[in-house]
Amino acid sequence: MVNPYNQDLDQNPANYQPLTPLSFLERASDVFPDHIAIIHGNTKTTYREFYTRSKQLAFSLAQLGMTRGSTVSTLLLNTPPMLEVHYGIPMCGAVIHAINTRLDPATIAFQLDHAKSEILFYDRELGSIVKEVLSHCQVKPHLIEFVDSEYEYKDAPVDLGADDYELFLNKGDSNYQWLMPENEWDAISVGYTSGTTGDPKGVVSHHRGAYLLAQGNAMVASMPKHSVYLWTLPMFHCNGWCFPWTMSAIIGIHVCLRQVRAEPIWQSIKTHKISHLCGAPIVMSVILSFDKQQDYRPDHQVQFFTAAAPPPENVLKQMQQAGFLVTHLYGLTETYGPAVINEWHQEWDSLNMTEQASLKARQGVRYLPLEHLSVLNPETMKPVPADGKTIGEVMFQGNIVMKGYLKNKTANDKAFAGGWFHSGDLAVMHPDGYLQLKDRSKDIIISGGENISSIEIEEALLKNECVAAAAVIAVANEKWGEVPCAFIELKVQHQWNSDEALQWCKSNLASFKVPKYYFFEDIPRTSTGKIQKYVLREKAKKLI
Amino acid sequence: MVNPYNQDLDQNPANYQPLTPLSFLERASDVFPDHIAIIHGNTKTTYREFYTRSKQLAFSLAQLGMTRGSTVSTLLLNTPPMLEVHYGIPMCGAVIHAINTRLDPATIAFQLDHAKSEILFYDRELGSIVKEVLSHCQVKPHLIEFVDSEYEYKDAPVDLGADDYELFLNKGDSNYQWLMPENEWDAISVGYTSGTTGDPKGVVSHHRGAYLLAQGNAMVASMPKHSVYLWTLPMFHCNGWCFPWTMSAIIGIHVCLRQVRAEPIWQSIKTHKISHLCGAPIVMSVILSFDKQQDYRPDHQVQFFTAAAPPPENVLKQMQQAGFLVTHLYGLTETYGPAVINEWHQEWDSLNMTEQASLKARQGVRYLPLEHLSVLNPETMKPVPADGKTIGEVMFQGNIVMKGYLKNKTANDKAFAGGWFHSGDLAVMHPDGYLQLKDRSKDIIISGGENISSIEIEEALLKNECVAAAAVIAVANEKWGEVPCAFIELKVQHQWNSDEALQWCKSNLASFKVPKYYFFEDIPRTSTGKIQKYVLREKAKKLI
Repeated sequence: MVNPYNQDLDQNPANYQPLTPLSFLERASDVFPDHIAIIHGNTKTTYREFYTRSKQLAFSLAQLGMTRGSTVSTLLLNTPPMLEVHYGIPMCGAVIHAINTRLDPATIAFQLDHAKSEILFYDRELGSIVKEVLSHCQVKPHLIEFVDSEYEYKDAPVDLGADDYELFLNKGDSNYQWLMPENEWDAISVGYTSGTTGDPKGVVSHHRGAYLLAQGNAMVASMPKHSVYLWTLPMFHCNGWCFPWTMSAIIGIHVCLRQVRAEPIWQSIKTHKISHLCGAPIVMSVILSFDKQQDYRPDHQVQFFTAAAPPPENVLKQMQQAGFLVTHLYGLTETYGPAVINEWHQEWDSLNMTEQASLKARQGVRYLPLEHLSVLNPETMKPVPADGKTIGEVMFQGNIVMKGYLKNKTANDKAFAGGWFHSGDLAVMHPDGYLQLKDRSKDIIISGGENISSIEIEEALLKNECVAAAAVIAVANEKWGEVPCAFIELKVQHQWNSDEALQWCKSNLASFKVPKYYFFEDIPRTSTGKIQKYVLREKAKKLI
Repeated sequence: MVNPYNQDLDQNPANYQPLTPLSFLERASDVFPDHIAIIHGNTKTTYREFYTRSKQLAFSLAQLGMTRGSTVSTLLLNTPPMLEVHYGIPMCGAVIHAINTRLDPATIAFQLDHAKSEILFYDRELGSIVKEVLSHCQVKPHLIEFVDSEYEYKDAPVDLGADDYELFLNKGDSNYQWLMPENEWDAISVGYTSGTTGDPKGVVSHHRGAYLLAQGNAMVASMPKHSVYLWTLPMFHCNGWCFPWTMSAIIGIHVCLRQVRAEPIWQSIKTHKISHLCGAPIVMSVILSFDKQQDYRPDHQVQFFTAAAPPPENVLKQMQQAGFLVTHLYGLTETYGPAVINEWHQEWDSLNMTEQASLKARQGVRYLPLEHLSVLNPETMKPVPADGKTIGEVMFQGNIVMKGYLKNKTANDKAFAGGWFHSGDLAVMHPDGYLQLKDRSKDIIISGGENISSIEIEEALLKNECVAAAAVIAVANEKWGEVPCAFIELKVQHQWNSDEALQWCKSNLASFKVPKYYFFEDIPRTSTGKIQKYVLREKAKKLI
């Protein structure tokens, strides 16, 4: 039978436009041209200026031949140009490639070559790194240097023959008719995974997903119009979780921050009335480390979104006392940033802090713009029982899952097998539908046929007052197949030895989970702060 | 050149799902199952129950053969079933057809026939109307009667052999695997224009647009999680402007209301801490008419969204004093409800009430999910100058413009000519980019070659303290082509005659805009409260 609701009711430009977050900035500039968009030190930029400068940037890029499918890279800190490139680059059809500035030159060079980067924006502070990068890579990107007038550079500038950012931008036509994506499925960005093993993979995001996550951030965080956002999260992480676009949708204010340091954070909160900020747990530690909190204590509540690791109980408690509401999020580069949220229930407020922390340690439920989230048995592709015990793999289905990995069909076929995105993260599902991470697939320890979560052992170790950080890996064992092995960083001026650690674990863990080996030393981390377990595995082979 | 960002990066179920607002309810039920979703009198429904009942309804409808492309109609008031059908009907793939309960039986019959309705849900109170409707129409829809246990029916029930709503729903399988749309472009609803002239047209909306406007409402209104919404806007108006879906996205509470009466509104605001409500200016009049406001005055600010006519200065003032923040919206059935918003600038708060009212009388700027809004010269399709004077036609481009009119290719070709949706509304564009309606195309008066806005004349008349309502139309005139003719409703116990009215207009309008004729009598209105100017035109022909 013919469906009458599909007859002569086709898409046309009047009723169908590609979704793109670029339209948020156009609207913000049209409606609130004089509202402040960006604060950086003493420099304030209005929405009219922000939009105009983004169009100028797009024009100048187009003049250099940038078009749909071109890659434009950045080695920038959380400064205004980093916001401008999030609009200017896609406004000429090109793809944003924001590079983690903490990476080593060889890895950066790999990314530039893989993405065939044609232009590289960089901050003067990173000139010497750029020089080294260029000696490693095949591509010869056009260089554009940003000199931050709000910052006192310590080192002498490195002359690489780069264009000056302001001059380059100012050449642009402020009335440039920027390009809408031809299709909302067009790429807006490429971001590389940190690659704890193997070559980094280029995660391609599209306009549709960026539009939806940008709105989703505001929706799940109840961010009202004119919110004020502090940039403690590096914008090179999944395009700042799409917040560069979220803020234009709600006509909010970006407060830039070159470095995550306690005093400027507290000062911004007070001076600019920061309403929201994001970051890994280390950012909370930095905030709480400040000894003059009383001088800057704000009158309003500040919302802090954290990801990468569950917020520990004592940190939660101190953050609450300091006037912050902490929300725990979880996501991957492949999901544009946060895709899972620990949605808080008002009735949980009455629980004690230990119970609250235990509930808040769970990653939670699907973000509003994510259609499906599940913990599946990867063999059967069936959901694990929601018993809080059975481990499965976290899988996603929805519009905020990446377009795929760039030039890597094999990885795509694997990642999307069975119609779900396989995160590689292992988790349990609690009876109330909240999931909790237990491990990365490759970090699980299988001992005597039992799956052991290295996170569970690490958490047990972290409960001891001497322990600053802990990383547990599997080591081969003739009898059990694998056994856990613990690497421990002690707090300053604390003493703890293997016997004490063993006793502690015996008292706090089921016996089959107790590590057989204990090493006390610094734990190696990636530039993004992730523990490099593969380095520890190599080390353990030599030590045992 | 091949664009590498389009190679081996296709859509698959892991990274592409059709947008549909139905997924909001599934999430609300999964994450906040025990949160209250609906309050109706003494009955409270949780999100788990709301979702379960919607699935049961969908199952029972599917059992009756409802499938993709079927039309299911409703003659319901703002009661819980009206919310349940907004999920249950599309969950089996069918299309919601919510009928204005104030229409005459012949018009309702026309709609049922045109949409080939297969099922009709109705409230017991409307039984006698349904009986009459059925005598007019060709289709024989399956009847399902809702008996509201929270309401005392005055009239005896009319026996039409209908199924009972609760029994029908309870037969349904609560684990029904409801249908996602095959495509986000699939129809979710059909709603008929009120048809001031000619046959009503069936406006078809799709899942994509409903998803985007539902979120857009929350975004532009800064509606936080757990907002509480009072149903003063009839849900048969553009599916309640998509708020039935908005509330699930933010896990809010619906407070139902069968009738718009002052005391229950004030009582709800106080008891349930209503945060948001919507309605035509008449709803504000009802609210302000209540003489015991002091007894129910809430501690919090209430947001009121109004559309259909600019809020008059004295109403704005009184609403502000009563604790309401009024926002002026504008849209059409063809745009899912509001598509234009009078975005308020904080600095305008310091202006006097006359200036504020004059700024608030403007319809404003594009809604966040609308891509483009313009006032174009329909001949040249070029924007009119933003001078606040030159009249053009309001046109829309974006994802919250309808799929089209059902079975009406001619109307679609006309409505979408030149790639813009032609609203038929005339407006000026102010220098700051805010548009202001001046008239419907067919209501403009062309006198001596000058375009005269009938709204402008009506506003001038309304400024006189004697005038309750005014409608101005064009009448033929040998010398001028057309001249304005005014119909005036006086306030109770007020006296005003033609000479006084003429003098008033001469003092308040440019001379060419002064009406030549004045009639003092009741003004005919449609069921939705719109003035029927075509009736006045017929009348004027006889009177002059």
